[in-house]
Amino acid sequence: MTKKFEEKTIHSTPIYEGKVVDLRVDEVSLPNGKTTKRELIKHPGAVAVIAITKENKILFVEQYRKPLEKSLVEIPAGKVEHGEAPEVTAKRELEEETGYTTGELSFVTSFYTSPGFADELMHIYITDEVEKMEEPIGSDEDEFVDVLELTLDEAKELVEQERIHDAKTTYAILYLHALGR
Amino acid sequence: MTKKFEEKTIHSTPIYEGKVVDLRVDEVSLPNGKTTKRELIKHPGAVAVIAITKENKILFVEQYRKPLEKSLVEIPAGKVEHGEAPEVTAKRELEEETGYTTGELSFVTSFYTSPGFADELMHIYITDEVEKMEEPIGSDEDEFVDVLELTLDEAKELVEQERIHDAKTTYAILYLHALGR
Repeated sequence: MTKKFEEKTIHSTPIYEGKVVDLRVDEVSLPNGKTTKRELIKHPGAVAVIAITKENKILFVEQYRKPLEKSLVEIPAGKVEHGEAPEVTAKRELEEETGYTTGELSFVTSFYTSPGFADELMHIYITDEVEKMEEPIGSDEDEFVDVLELTLDEAKELVEQERIHDAKTTYAILYLHALGR
Repeated sequence: MTKKFEEKTIHSTPIYEGKVVDLRVDEVSLPNGKTTKRELIKHPGAVAVIAITKENKILFVEQYRKPLEKSLVEIPAGKVEHGEAPEVTAKRELEEETGYTTGELSFVTSFYTSPGFADELMHIYITDEVEKMEEPIGSDEDEFVDVLELTLDEAKELVEQERIHDAKTTYAILYLHALGR
């Protein structure tokens, strides 16, 4: 881990503790000795799954995204629960959101979604061993999603239309494209 | 624009207005008639540039990321200033952060970095026409960055080491890989 140009905290002010995010503002000392303020969002981290069916379709969910005031088509994803391993979250979110399950998840990559102001780390997995659950478990009570099964070409079309328009899903489609699927 | 499963705002509570982000909490009505709360970060949007030199090196900047308490190696990027076209921001950030300029930027893609809680839209551009500025203009006074010029293979090595570990840069490297550069 590199700490180049480290900004040491002089004073930390908690602003808000929420269900999904916390916000605090830190006064920090800069490498030139001056001070500035950094607005910091704490997030528990997230997972997403590139899930491919036997028919070579990719599973997506469409849901309303309040910050954008519109719905997006995304790969299945969710927040990591406290103390949960990301693979466990990934399998659970796949089951809850799509009604499919899998025995096998392979790690693809991870990335900080927005390191300038947030610590959210996104973990992406892939599986081509999904199977429909006989007794789907359903979503969280405040989550409403539609499941879509699309070919890669159909998904690329939704990128063009900006109905697919988020970091993890855009990455996933480029990843499958690069694999030559 | 699709509004499937729209969540209408019943009441909006502003929590914080910052330099980079605003936070508010909305009480919303769900498709089943129940209500819930959504924590919403407003962000002005951002740009990033995949900048390639005549020697076929990619330009990166290393900087401290306070939310992560470590430094990351990223492609040059920055916040869109109020009223500024993203291409203009992209050229300005390239100049300020790297001391290189370009006459030509091509649009690669855009994505919402974290649509579950934030409206930040990232625009990515590419240029292989960069030139060193004779009189570099320097960075913002609270920004400290080191410039790195790397081959694609060297950049992939930093992905392995997690020194490159953010959404836009991970996407950029996969994009160049897929292009067969």
